Amino acid sequence: MSHGELYHSMNKWTMPLIANIILFAVMQCGFAFLEAGAVRSKNSTNILIKNLMDQFVAGIAYWIFGFPFAFGNGNDFIGYTFWATYELEETKLALFFFQYVFAATAATIVSGAMAERCEFIAYIVYSILITGFIYPVVTHWVWSDNAWLTAGMDYTFNNETVTIGYKDFAGSGVVHVLGGIAALVGASLLGPRKGRFHKGSKTVVPIRGHSVPLAALGGFILLFGFLAFNGGSQLTISNAGDGEAISLSVVNTIISGSMSALVSLIINRLTGTSKWSLLTTLNGALTGMVAICAGCNVYHPWAACVVGFFAAIAYKLINTIVTSLYIDDPLDAVAVHFGGGSWGVIAVAFLHRTDGIVYNWDQASGMALAWQLCGLVTITAWTAVTSVLMFGILKLTGLLRVAPELEAKGLDIPKHGEPAYPTEAYGHGWEEKLAKILEHVELKDGDGFAKAFLGAPVKQTDVGPYENPEVNYMDTHSTTNLNDLESGKGTTNGTTGVPHVTSIDVKSTTKM
Amino acid sequence: MSHGELYHSMNKWTMPLIANIILFAVMQCGFAFLEAGAVRSKNSTNILIKNLMDQFVAGIAYWIFGFPFAFGNGNDFIGYTFWATYELEETKLALFFFQYVFAATAATIVSGAMAERCEFIAYIVYSILITGFIYPVVTHWVWSDNAWLTAGMDYTFNNETVTIGYKDFAGSGVVHVLGGIAALVGASLLGPRKGRFHKGSKTVVPIRGHSVPLAALGGFILLFGFLAFNGGSQLTISNAGDGEAISLSVVNTIISGSMSALVSLIINRLTGTSKWSLLTTLNGALTGMVAICAGCNVYHPWAACVVGFFAAIAYKLINTIVTSLYIDDPLDAVAVHFGGGSWGVIAVAFLHRTDGIVYNWDQASGMALAWQLCGLVTITAWTAVTSVLMFGILKLTGLLRVAPELEAKGLDIPKHGEPAYPTEAYGHGWEEKLAKILEHVELKDGDGFAKAFLGAPVKQTDVGPYENPEVNYMDTHSTTNLNDLESGKGTTNGTTGVPHVTSIDVKSTTKM
Amino acid sequence: MSHGELYHSMNKWTMPLIANIILFAVMQCGFAFLEAGAVRSKNSTNILIKNLMDQFVAGIAYWIFGFPFAFGNGNDFIGYTFWATYELEETKLALFFFQYVFAATAATIVSGAMAERCEFIAYIVYSILITGFIYPVVTHWVWSDNAWLTAGMDYTFNNETVTIGYKDFAGSGVVHVLGGIAALVGASLLGPRKGRFHKGSKTVVPIRGHSVPLAALGGFILLFGFLAFNGGSQLTISNAGDGEAISLSVVNTIISGSMSALVSLIINRLTGTSKWSLLTTLNGALTGMVAICAGCNVYHPWAACVVGFFAAIAYKLINTIVTSLYIDDPLDAVAVHFGGGSWGVIAVAFLHRTDGIVYNWDQASGMALAWQLCGLVTITAWTAVTSVLMFGILKLTGLLRVAPELEAKGLDIPKHGEPAYPTEAYGHGWEEKLAKILEHVELKDGDGFAKAFLGAPVKQTDVGPYENPEVNYMDTHSTTNLNDLESGKGTTNGTTGVPHVTSIDVKSTTKM
Repeated sequence: MSHGELYHSMNKWTMPLIANIILFAVMQCGFAFLEAGAVRSKNSTNILIKNLMDQFVAGIAYWIFGFPFAFGNGNDFIGYTFWATYELEETKLALFFFQYVFAATAATIVSGAMAERCEFIAYIVYSILITGFIYPVVTHWVWSDNAWLTAGMDYTFNNETVTIGYKDFAGSGVVHVLGGIAALVGASLLGPRKGRFHKGSKTVVPIRGHSVPLAALGGFILLFGFLAFNGGSQLTISNAGDGEAISLSVVNTIISGSMSALVSLIINRLTGTSKWSLLTTLNGALTGMVAICAGCNVYHPWAACVVGFFAAIAYKLINTIVTSLYIDDPLDAVAVHFGGGSWGVIAVAFLHRTDGIVYNWDQASGMALAWQLCGLVTITAWTAVTSVLMFGILKLTGLLRVAPELEAKGLDIPKHGEPAYPTEAYGHGWEEKLAKILEHVELKDGDGFAKAFLGAPVKQTDVGPYENPEVNYMDTHSTTNLNDLESGKGTTNGTTGVPHVTSIDVKSTTKM
Repeated sequence: MSHGELYHSMNKWTMPLIANIILFAVMQCGFAFLEAGAVRSKNSTNILIKNLMDQFVAGIAYWIFGFPFAFGNGNDFIGYTFWATYELEETKLALFFFQYVFAATAATIVSGAMAERCEFIAYIVYSILITGFIYPVVTHWVWSDNAWLTAGMDYTFNNETVTIGYKDFAGSGVVHVLGGIAALVGASLLGPRKGRFHKGSKTVVPIRGHSVPLAALGGFILLFGFLAFNGGSQLTISNAGDGEAISLSVVNTIISGSMSALVSLIINRLTGTSKWSLLTTLNGALTGMVAICAGCNVYHPWAACVVGFFAAIAYKLINTIVTSLYIDDPLDAVAVHFGGGSWGVIAVAFLHRTDGIVYNWDQASGMALAWQLCGLVTITAWTAVTSVLMFGILKLTGLLRVAPELEAKGLDIPKHGEPAYPTEAYGHGWEEKLAKILEHVELKDGDGFAKAFLGAPVKQTDVGPYENPEVNYMDTHSTTNLNDLESGKGTTNGTTGVPHVTSIDVKSTTKM
Repeated sequence: MSHGELYHSMNKWTMPLIANIILFAVMQCGFAFLEAGAVRSKNSTNILIKNLMDQFVAGIAYWIFGFPFAFGNGNDFIGYTFWATYELEETKLALFFFQYVFAATAATIVSGAMAERCEFIAYIVYSILITGFIYPVVTHWVWSDNAWLTAGMDYTFNNETVTIGYKDFAGSGVVHVLGGIAALVGASLLGPRKGRFHKGSKTVVPIRGHSVPLAALGGFILLFGFLAFNGGSQLTISNAGDGEAISLSVVNTIISGSMSALVSLIINRLTGTSKWSLLTTLNGALTGMVAICAGCNVYHPWAACVVGFFAAIAYKLINTIVTSLYIDDPLDAVAVHFGGGSWGVIAVAFLHRTDGIVYNWDQASGMALAWQLCGLVTITAWTAVTSVLMFGILKLTGLLRVAPELEAKGLDIPKHGEPAYPTEAYGHGWEEKLAKILEHVELKDGDGFAKAFLGAPVKQTDVGPYENPEVNYMDTHSTTNLNDLESGKGTTNGTTGVPHVTSIDVKSTTKM
């Protein structure tokens, strides 16, 4: 083994592996908590299990057919070998792992835009299709051996022949534009959450998430993830392990994210609520990091600063447009990923440190811009068409959105049987008094919940093995059957569905 | 230095170090939050400090005598050199660090099964014994230079001599069967939490944890940890740094975990509560990852899929058995770790990609199965016997379980003086009104707590330096002395222990 | 490329990069959650955005002028080339990244000591100055090519000439003493939180944070961060990649942290509250890890144990002194960082495994102690003087501290418009009853908040696009203008600022 081979082989396996192990946690866990904090408490378990599931769904779907579509041998459009990694050389397993993480990320972006009202089954279906088909096809075009977008074409300018193609180092287009467009289509077809818009009075009502700390935790993890994402992309895609390029990628990612964060903070302070908003700053930083992905390895640091500045503008712009179209995107996923991603794809043509338009405005750099736009349009069109089909069919079959009553009361209890913060798990034994104070509330002796509320549960004869007293209660007291509701068929008459009041209601109210 | 040496030396130090730094956070932090979310709020601080402590206890105990027992020179049963790393070559410090993390993990598994009722002192004692003795002896048998289980024996079949021994790559048996059995013995001797089972009516009452998001956070971190765990095991144990084997280990871990998660989700949907349970899915994924540990480096990916499928079955099976024996395991630690671990040990004999029974059913593969069973039985027996002695003595001396009143009211305040969510730390100044509404509640002017509730504390003359108003209050108003309770001697007459009612009670009730 | 060069180049880029990617998440995220858990819920968003911002502020400030001051070519006092990394060789970008993380950490330490009452603008200003000037100058003295403190002087003892200088491997002095002193000055000039001390009765009132789990999360992450911090420091600073030294650093970090944690736990149990305190144990562990930084690469493990033991004593000592001076440090940042850091700097002179005083008490080791003390005094003096100027000017201009009413009611709503746990995001549809029970509370039909409380918001005509109903309410009902308050000019008449009561107050009260 020559030095070069040794060097290559070590970096090839060590770096992407470590970077991916980090990514694995980071991207899924980061999105999960960003989203969990940004939804109301009644839908927290729902959004967490969705983020948990897509890595498992992707683990099977990307293994069986996603990776073959992307990196199998085939034609320019799609690959079709290596089903379930069959006959895949073991040296390519690290690539499989790296790409698997990207695929799961693409699906996760969408979950934010569709939070709090999307059916669980619809989520599973679209996760399979995005990670197993929509995303793999695009990666086939950009990152495989058959990649026609990246390969580009030969051009002769001034008697010199150059090859120009689409450049997308760490996926501003492939991952984020794709995820952002799918999120846009999904949120549009799904419709806004109940109470989000009042079109008559042209009023937009903020629906705030239940926990800034959880959202911030997710955000911190995602910032960290982008460094691994962008730093780690070097060694999978290029053939030479280039320490300087890794460092440059990471430093540019920091600078672009920082700039975009600061500009977003200031824009928000000067407009709108006039507050120093944490969530806006965080989304700004993420947009800056999304935008830098496409060319973090080919920018000078000052150019990263410029990319970050305009990323903040792009975020604000897309955010305003989406809202004015009455599209409800609880996580601003479209503004962050499509806004940042599309600007990032275009920015490479302008700011590439050797070929960018700001350095040389000539035929070659113009053609490079054309290829970036070509990539952007192609990815957008592909994702839009497939997403409209996918979400449209789900909508027509009535599988896309939960029943109105379930949406109003939250998905955690009827769908998952697991309220995020179960009432009876709080308190520490000094709490008997509120019930007494509110004595005019009738306490039913046999009720498991009331007992739990009053202290250690005693003789809960009406609670079967492994059943959930809260769900039990709902089943008993609701005027419709929850299983009907789950299948999307049920309707109830709203609040009058609770025929009588016990201490449970009091407790529920005072719950976190 | 030759190429080979260079290659070896770099991987030898770089990979395990990084993997371990990751593991360090991951395994402790992941278990800590999985457990914190799965207990009631009144015991959150207690479970967090236990998980925090075991890494410190292990840091000292494994250093002084645990590592010597495991990797010191000695006889087949135990090692006895390198006390406190004395005379240990510095090249073995990375091994020390790696194994230290595994040892702390083994102790942590047990803490979940014994949550919400185990004495703090008992926890310290058993952490020292597991990390310092029980676990090290098993690693001596399997992973040291004297490892008789791994070395196995020579057999001659058809005139060919082969060596067959126990195979356990990343510890399905060594770490997880050991942890699961110790958890089973501990939970059995400790007895169920008050109110968990009603044997008369054969009723099992679910005692839900206080925060799904915290539990999910722990779960996400653990999933990530298993990748580092299984990927990182390659380079410590084998001598040749083999990039393909690392990638294979990681990919197999993903596939097994994903499959087990999906199957567990579906089993739970079809049986029991009919819900899409997040916690069950998470436990399923963890079981799949536990099961793949033993052979993640020697399976084809399809075999990993099979391992994951049966891991879900094993989880459900052991879970059902444990519950039907009225053993209270709040975290399902036995089902996850013993269920997944024991299936994982056996699976290697069947699915090993060159020698497995499904490929060649002959004398050699039969003998390999015998050695796997031998390892499983040996580890189970050793752990069961030592655990019965350890927990039995603690029980006989009355140090194992907290007093009933402490259990009912929670451990955080009397044991640690730190309620997880202190009442007075909530609210933001617009809260004067509830007290007014509930005006018939008498407000005592001198009471520090009431003042805190009404706004900024003023002249809290009855609060000494660094004392805790909540604990103070309990001391003053309880009919028994809390210090007596702590030592396990006290008894009180329950709810009448609160002689009069002040606004504190109201506030406690409405606390998160 | 020779073997040596290859080896060097790979370690040089791979290790610090990975370690830093980890550090990036770890130090910022760890401090953020440690602090978020340790403040009251009304200031959670405020402390989180501060910790989020300092990495962005540092990203720009350290890039433009911080790194040039530290590692630019210049004189002994300061560097002055490489502005905005201009003309910086790309091979030094990894160093830039590594040092950027350290710089942000130094600023973050201070934020803990000044929590819950510091102005947001003041925070931005001091973050720029610490990461862009105060910290870089010290690193120029210790870690740059011009480092006069590290270079030291030549001495001739017994006809042998030796060079002796200041030793600080991973920054006990450079990062932690600096951060601790700045925190001390900041907290002193800022003054204690309202209600913290009653000097008349010499009473110290504990102001507990709102979430032990959040604080513990931060703590777990920081413990992990120190391993990367100390392990990662090897390869940036030394020229030879030395696997043994990395392992030794990590093992020593574990042992010192564990010892300090255990001793702190026991001290707290034997004195003060007599409880097994999680937060004290955690701070003890952090102090032990801070103290080991300076020499983790040159201690025998037993010496690390000694360092940890005295770190616990130093923590308790400084903590006691700070409190007795009526300085309010909500995070114990001074005790942890200055206490641990200053002991760590001194410990190197005593316990260095070849030159320490306990091995050879001679002129050379005496002079080494003198150089450690010289470094400690120099760093302390520089930081104290610059911090007094910085915080003093901020105080004189009235920009340092928020208005008293804002402090009492919390910073999240008026400053950031983002309460950490928004009331209306909780509950799941079974909550109509409390309003009914408290029927004597008047419900105003037009009020956005009341509607949100009663279910899905309908016709919230008084809520403009993207405004915040809670802030809106405050604006409408407060007797003073919040914007006046924000600029530090406003005063209100306290609780009477709420002229009438609606259901909002009830709900606010019962909020988490």
